[in-house]
Amino acid sequence: MSTASADEHSPPVLSADLNADVAEGYGRWSFGTDEDLLGLITSANVACGFHAGDPTVIRSAVQLAADRRVRIGAHIGYPDLLGFGRRHLAMSEQEVVDSCVYQLAALTGIARSAGTTVSYVKPHGALYNEATTDEALAAAVVRGVGEVDGDLAVMGMPGSALLRAAARAGHPTIREAFADRAYNPDGTLVARHVPGSLLNDPADVAARALRMVTEREVEAIDGTVVEVQPDRLCVHGDSPGAAAMAAAVRRTLEAAGVLVHAARASDSW
Amino acid sequence: MSTASADEHSPPVLSADLNADVAEGYGRWSFGTDEDLLGLITSANVACGFHAGDPTVIRSAVQLAADRRVRIGAHIGYPDLLGFGRRHLAMSEQEVVDSCVYQLAALTGIARSAGTTVSYVKPHGALYNEATTDEALAAAVVRGVGEVDGDLAVMGMPGSALLRAAARAGHPTIREAFADRAYNPDGTLVARHVPGSLLNDPADVAARALRMVTEREVEAIDGTVVEVQPDRLCVHGDSPGAAAMAAAVRRTLEAAGVLVHAARASDSW
Amino acid sequence: MSTASADEHSPPVLSADLNADVAEGYGRWSFGTDEDLLGLITSANVACGFHAGDPTVIRSAVQLAADRRVRIGAHIGYPDLLGFGRRHLAMSEQEVVDSCVYQLAALTGIARSAGTTVSYVKPHGALYNEATTDEALAAAVVRGVGEVDGDLAVMGMPGSALLRAAARAGHPTIREAFADRAYNPDGTLVARHVPGSLLNDPADVAARALRMVTEREVEAIDGTVVEVQPDRLCVHGDSPGAAAMAAAVRRTLEAAGVLVHAARASDSW
Amino acid sequence: MSTASADEHSPPVLSADLNADVAEGYGRWSFGTDEDLLGLITSANVACGFHAGDPTVIRSAVQLAADRRVRIGAHIGYPDLLGFGRRHLAMSEQEVVDSCVYQLAALTGIARSAGTTVSYVKPHGALYNEATTDEALAAAVVRGVGEVDGDLAVMGMPGSALLRAAARAGHPTIREAFADRAYNPDGTLVARHVPGSLLNDPADVAARALRMVTEREVEAIDGTVVEVQPDRLCVHGDSPGAAAMAAAVRRTLEAAGVLVHAARASDSW
Repeated sequence: MSTASADEHSPPVLSADLNADVAEGYGRWSFGTDEDLLGLITSANVACGFHAGDPTVIRSAVQLAADRRVRIGAHIGYPDLLGFGRRHLAMSEQEVVDSCVYQLAALTGIARSAGTTVSYVKPHGALYNEATTDEALAAAVVRGVGEVDGDLAVMGMPGSALLRAAARAGHPTIREAFADRAYNPDGTLVARHVPGSLLNDPADVAARALRMVTEREVEAIDGTVVEVQPDRLCVHGDSPGAAAMAAAVRRTLEAAGVLVHAARASDSW
Repeated sequence: MSTASADEHSPPVLSADLNADVAEGYGRWSFGTDEDLLGLITSANVACGFHAGDPTVIRSAVQLAADRRVRIGAHIGYPDLLGFGRRHLAMSEQEVVDSCVYQLAALTGIARSAGTTVSYVKPHGALYNEATTDEALAAAVVRGVGEVDGDLAVMGMPGSALLRAAARAGHPTIREAFADRAYNPDGTLVARHVPGSLLNDPADVAARALRMVTEREVEAIDGTVVEVQPDRLCVHGDSPGAAAMAAAVRRTLEAAGVLVHAARASDSW
Repeated sequence: MSTASADEHSPPVLSADLNADVAEGYGRWSFGTDEDLLGLITSANVACGFHAGDPTVIRSAVQLAADRRVRIGAHIGYPDLLGFGRRHLAMSEQEVVDSCVYQLAALTGIARSAGTTVSYVKPHGALYNEATTDEALAAAVVRGVGEVDGDLAVMGMPGSALLRAAARAGHPTIREAFADRAYNPDGTLVARHVPGSLLNDPADVAARALRMVTEREVEAIDGTVVEVQPDRLCVHGDSPGAAAMAAAVRRTLEAAGVLVHAARASDSW
Repeated sequence: MSTASADEHSPPVLSADLNADVAEGYGRWSFGTDEDLLGLITSANVACGFHAGDPTVIRSAVQLAADRRVRIGAHIGYPDLLGFGRRHLAMSEQEVVDSCVYQLAALTGIARSAGTTVSYVKPHGALYNEATTDEALAAAVVRGVGEVDGDLAVMGMPGSALLRAAARAGHPTIREAFADRAYNPDGTLVARHVPGSLLNDPADVAARALRMVTEREVEAIDGTVVEVQPDRLCVHGDSPGAAAMAAAVRRTLEAAGVLVHAARASDSW
């Protein structure tokens, strides 16, 4: 979503980096979309085994991402397979730090064994939501990331405690917008349990995505227009129509001349 | 256990590298011996979270080991907390490979964050026992290790399928002897469920250890004398008297003039 | 599949009891077929939380089964969510007994709270396969069942160690045939990893099912004809087409005049 | 702690029912105190497998309790082995209901197979603490209990939301006092992470226990005297000195003429 460098006299080329969640299966269970999604997105948030993902699922997704030159992010979550990392768990700060180190370390080694690297960290589910406003939790996540790699980019909500903590610690930060989630007027996401919080119509989501990239705004659930300044666009991967939605978003962006590619972290400041 | 380089005219100095299992707790449960053991041993087999060990337990043990300059090994096991990795689990070869990659990758990153490194891999429990004779399993373990680090040392039973597979793949190999386990006349270990398979008397175990180092032999359960050529000595860490036993072994070795220190992998061929 | 009691002069009415696996989800993951299947089958093998199923998934499936007057069986398995209970796990006999007691006890209480009861036990996956030939394992399963309910029916392969152990202990036994699995000439099932072991075509499976009920035979994978004497017919529930297949089987049986209903255990000797 | 019925002219005999947590091991891990504790207490809070306890650990503890005529309670907890059920987990109310049903059902069946019964339910850890004040959570726990047994007694803190919800639903309620925990002046427990919250000196704890039974009061952490009206006395089981402490309490109570026995639920109103 940065403005790609261009000839001085030509208009700037808009670009977008599309991310989605992968490796969200466990053993025989999956949402069945990794292979399709990895042909459409440019950054993959890879589950690390705590809220989803087992060693084989993770290794397969990382290998597919590497083959398709999709950038890899560590999607770290609460240790709660049963709740898919979407339930608050009252971990101590040290437990959060250590859990982030463990998950990021595991994915980093798996990525290296597949000939690629981890490019960023993005908390998942309840950890993501809570690190938006909980300063101590955000600091613990960032401390865990920093213990593994002090230069690693951190992805989160614009204006979040997470991105503030990451910036303070010297990490590149990546702001994202959610093409398929409803927004509150204050720029936060409408909670999942609220009816209408998840958008399912591919054409609708694609139009929102385009407006986010070109106009840098989104219509909130009450109709007001909210500014967004995304470095990345997120679509979700755990619904049956996930790949169709990602395809619609990509098609719509490209038809409008937006360059869909894996951005460097430095593109995102 | 190698013969340390010495002045041409002085007798060679015998040395020993003492290993034991650490990070074998989980949450509030532990065997309570890590801190004591890490002051006595020279190599620590660190559980990686599959058969024991959680992120905080592992990080703490790794930090303690780093502080005390104890060498760190990845103690990889079957994903079976309930069975402590001591029950056979019929994993596919690919699952074994991926599980080894995941565990070794996680520990490698944790070690790096503590300013140290993983020096070797040692399978745990049923995985260790089965990789002694199961060539396909041994090859899968070695393949997993190699995907993370092709130069990493592999520790196992002398003459085992594991060490053969490791050698074939170009890994340094480390042969170990168990000071507190009974041996069969063929040099294999007596199975844990057999009465007398575990030795509990510290003085007895220390005497065995000394004989292993100085005479390179051990008395088997039937009284025959079996040759051992250990590069490392193992004592166990999951019993109440583990630290007392390690202390007795170390004291006895040092009293006999054996240099107890962390060997380099290259010391062990 | 028993011959229903009928007027002395009219021909006997063939009947069939159709079972499938339900409650095989875990948290957000599922195979998505419980609701559809429970409208088609007459006996439901309900996962008990060890290889699949969480308290909410299980309670929902049991309630649905109760509402539709589908008979409930305890589908007990190895404690291995990651392997879906399909990998051998070397449990001790006492562990098997205790695990069976725990799972059966949990489901029994859930069934009671839904106003229904558990009618039979059927081991799942590796436990099912191994209890076909492993006499000690079969006896441990039966001992676990008997500790909860000495009169409960046990479902398994005709001629299996499991049914022999159950009969010896005084449990009613239920022999089943698998409509969608290939058979070996000796009447055992072709292992899942063998190509062709799982039949996917609904019409084909329905025809086999009808032949099993009416002719009491099935064509093995090598073309020979094998006798089966099923008390129940099993179709699987963990594939996308599971409900379509169950529907085809039921339709075909009913079109041929077979009465599809939940049999009593006593119908099955 | 009720006043036992006595001859009209003789003074009333004070009695006490001593409870502690058992079955808190998991696989090879344990706190090692079940056997000792079960010779000293009169009610056992048995872990049900979610925060601690595996089928074999649970069955063993239940059998020991049955042999020694110790009353059995279901110690239901959050599904969090790693956190030992001491961390808040944001479960939905339905998930709480279903988890309580599952755990209580499992223990009920295991108790029956051991020839005994479950006499009461007591939430564990974070679930216990939160159900003291969270009315919705308390109601969900009670609903779960009621789905299995509408007449089962519920144990909790005097004045708690849990006991109010239980009473409203028609369950007998059992008020308990903690002999080895510090109290706030308002009669609540001092949180575990506060220094001084856990009392370790057996003589001190025994004296408190006696005062609770005979004077119906306890000295709070600030020195004020707080009224308690316990039906049961709790001492903890997960510390090395647990059995010694329970022994001191029992000895002190009996020396003072207090009858230590398993009370009926109806003794406790």
